[in-house]
Amino acid sequence: MRCRKCGQKAVINMRQHRLSLCAAHFQEWLPAQVDRFIKKYKMFNYTDRVLVAVSGGKDSLALWNILAQLGFQTDGLYIDLGIDEGIAYSSRSREVTESFALQRGLPLHITDIKESYGESIPQINERTHRGRSKPCSVCGLVKRHIFNDFAQKNNYDVVVTGHNLDDEAAILLANTLDWSLEFLARGYPVLPAKPGFTKKTKPFCRIYERESAAYAFVSGIAYMESECPFSLDSKQLKYKRILNQWEDDRPGMKLRFYLHYLNALNAGAFPWKQDNAKTLSQHLCPQCGQPTSTGGLCTFCRLFKQP
Amino acid sequence: MRCRKCGQKAVINMRQHRLSLCAAHFQEWLPAQVDRFIKKYKMFNYTDRVLVAVSGGKDSLALWNILAQLGFQTDGLYIDLGIDEGIAYSSRSREVTESFALQRGLPLHITDIKESYGESIPQINERTHRGRSKPCSVCGLVKRHIFNDFAQKNNYDVVVTGHNLDDEAAILLANTLDWSLEFLARGYPVLPAKPGFTKKTKPFCRIYERESAAYAFVSGIAYMESECPFSLDSKQLKYKRILNQWEDDRPGMKLRFYLHYLNALNAGAFPWKQDNAKTLSQHLCPQCGQPTSTGGLCTFCRLFKQP
Repeated sequence: MRCRKCGQKAVINMRQHRLSLCAAHFQEWLPAQVDRFIKKYKMFNYTDRVLVAVSGGKDSLALWNILAQLGFQTDGLYIDLGIDEGIAYSSRSREVTESFALQRGLPLHITDIKESYGESIPQINERTHRGRSKPCSVCGLVKRHIFNDFAQKNNYDVVVTGHNLDDEAAILLANTLDWSLEFLARGYPVLPAKPGFTKKTKPFCRIYERESAAYAFVSGIAYMESECPFSLDSKQLKYKRILNQWEDDRPGMKLRFYLHYLNALNAGAFPWKQDNAKTLSQHLCPQCGQPTSTGGLCTFCRLFKQP
Repeated sequence: MRCRKCGQKAVINMRQHRLSLCAAHFQEWLPAQVDRFIKKYKMFNYTDRVLVAVSGGKDSLALWNILAQLGFQTDGLYIDLGIDEGIAYSSRSREVTESFALQRGLPLHITDIKESYGESIPQINERTHRGRSKPCSVCGLVKRHIFNDFAQKNNYDVVVTGHNLDDEAAILLANTLDWSLEFLARGYPVLPAKPGFTKKTKPFCRIYERESAAYAFVSGIAYMESECPFSLDSKQLKYKRILNQWEDDRPGMKLRFYLHYLNALNAGAFPWKQDNAKTLSQHLCPQCGQPTSTGGLCTFCRLFKQP
């Protein structure tokens, strides 16, 4: 297997693109792809202040590395979730992230949720019904709130997350099998800014997880390899496995599934729900000021409300 | 496993409904379900003249049996496709259908496509590019045309087909993975009448293939068990296998997938495409008078046009 560009030994064969590349050319190719998608989907530009949501995993660190290289103005925000579960998950992820930022001279902010809100994720999970049955759902809610809150208070123009194609296709498949219209209407990789909400984008939305991992590896990025212990039997992993089986049979199927869906959105699928979503989110939470679908406290503020 | 209604030995356990039934109660239950769906989706009523598209397989014969039992005015139409392929597929299917109708005193019409149009399906397949690459696509086109043509010329109010839930869910999954908006907009089990087109419905749309087969078996219906030799490696069978795997993990998943999609259609997903489909089909084929998306000959008439 040879690099298509230079004929040297290839490190990755991307069947979906019919493309094999050596380490050096892959390190050129992937950032160029990301740059193309940032422009194509009008995610942000060089004058924007970009907040990168970093977890210490391969995707968010690879993304931060690429955005900084491409010359965007990026700061990182790491949220210490206080997850130990016998493998010091959060503290090790934090160390990895801190040393990544330090080595590259990139500004990193840290929010410790136990310090700021009085409870770690495992403590919230234990206290609440939702946390016991769906820990990933509570954790996602908390992270989305904090990233947006930090961006709002510090005047960032955009929040970016490291969600890759495998993440997006798995969520899309789950929402499609349920025909969850609310979610299907909001699956675009750019969520525009609105009162109380900073624009949010996913520059890796068309990058395979395998490409992101290979990039982190060949770029010598030390990242947290363990998955979060709470996520190990999540539904999302099940849908990823199904998609990987199909991808094996039909290389590029995962990407086509996602791109056809974006085309469907652009062609006007789910318009009523899209309008509805706009109308609904006119309400702002009276406590934190973030958008909410009702007139009362938002889900995050209700999570922490004293009984 | 005991019948929920009488405690006798059950012949079928429907995990998706948490319901086990003996032969006698299953033979009551399934027609009552079908009757309920006919009314719920406003498919037809007792004064309508119903044309049943029969192939000799379990679904169409079980459907015809049930509709006749329920007191609807039904005639059958069998299309002899001229498929032999070493197993006398068409002639055996025809015999099975003729003896089913004869035993029950039900009126059966027969169209032999070689007699009427000069060529059998295998001959059309050999002659045309589309037939060589997608034999099921050509056969479906020919059957849809002939059923509609017969219904138009003989003043039927509605054409019914034996498509079951497994058929509908498999087609839906294929169209969803491709996000084929044209097809997703037209997946409702009732297609209304319009100029040149007789109303078309699918009373088995919520009946599992397994239920339909069990009904045919316990009702002593002799049906053609072999699948059409041309369909054996069709895409549809692949999607059916995938759905069956999921159904094993989550009983009822197939039905929920289909019902959530119907809800999505009713809630207004794909409205633009639905309007578009209505506008497009205002054209009528100048040769046969059936609706077509362009001003010229319809696909069926082009298939038989002399070069």
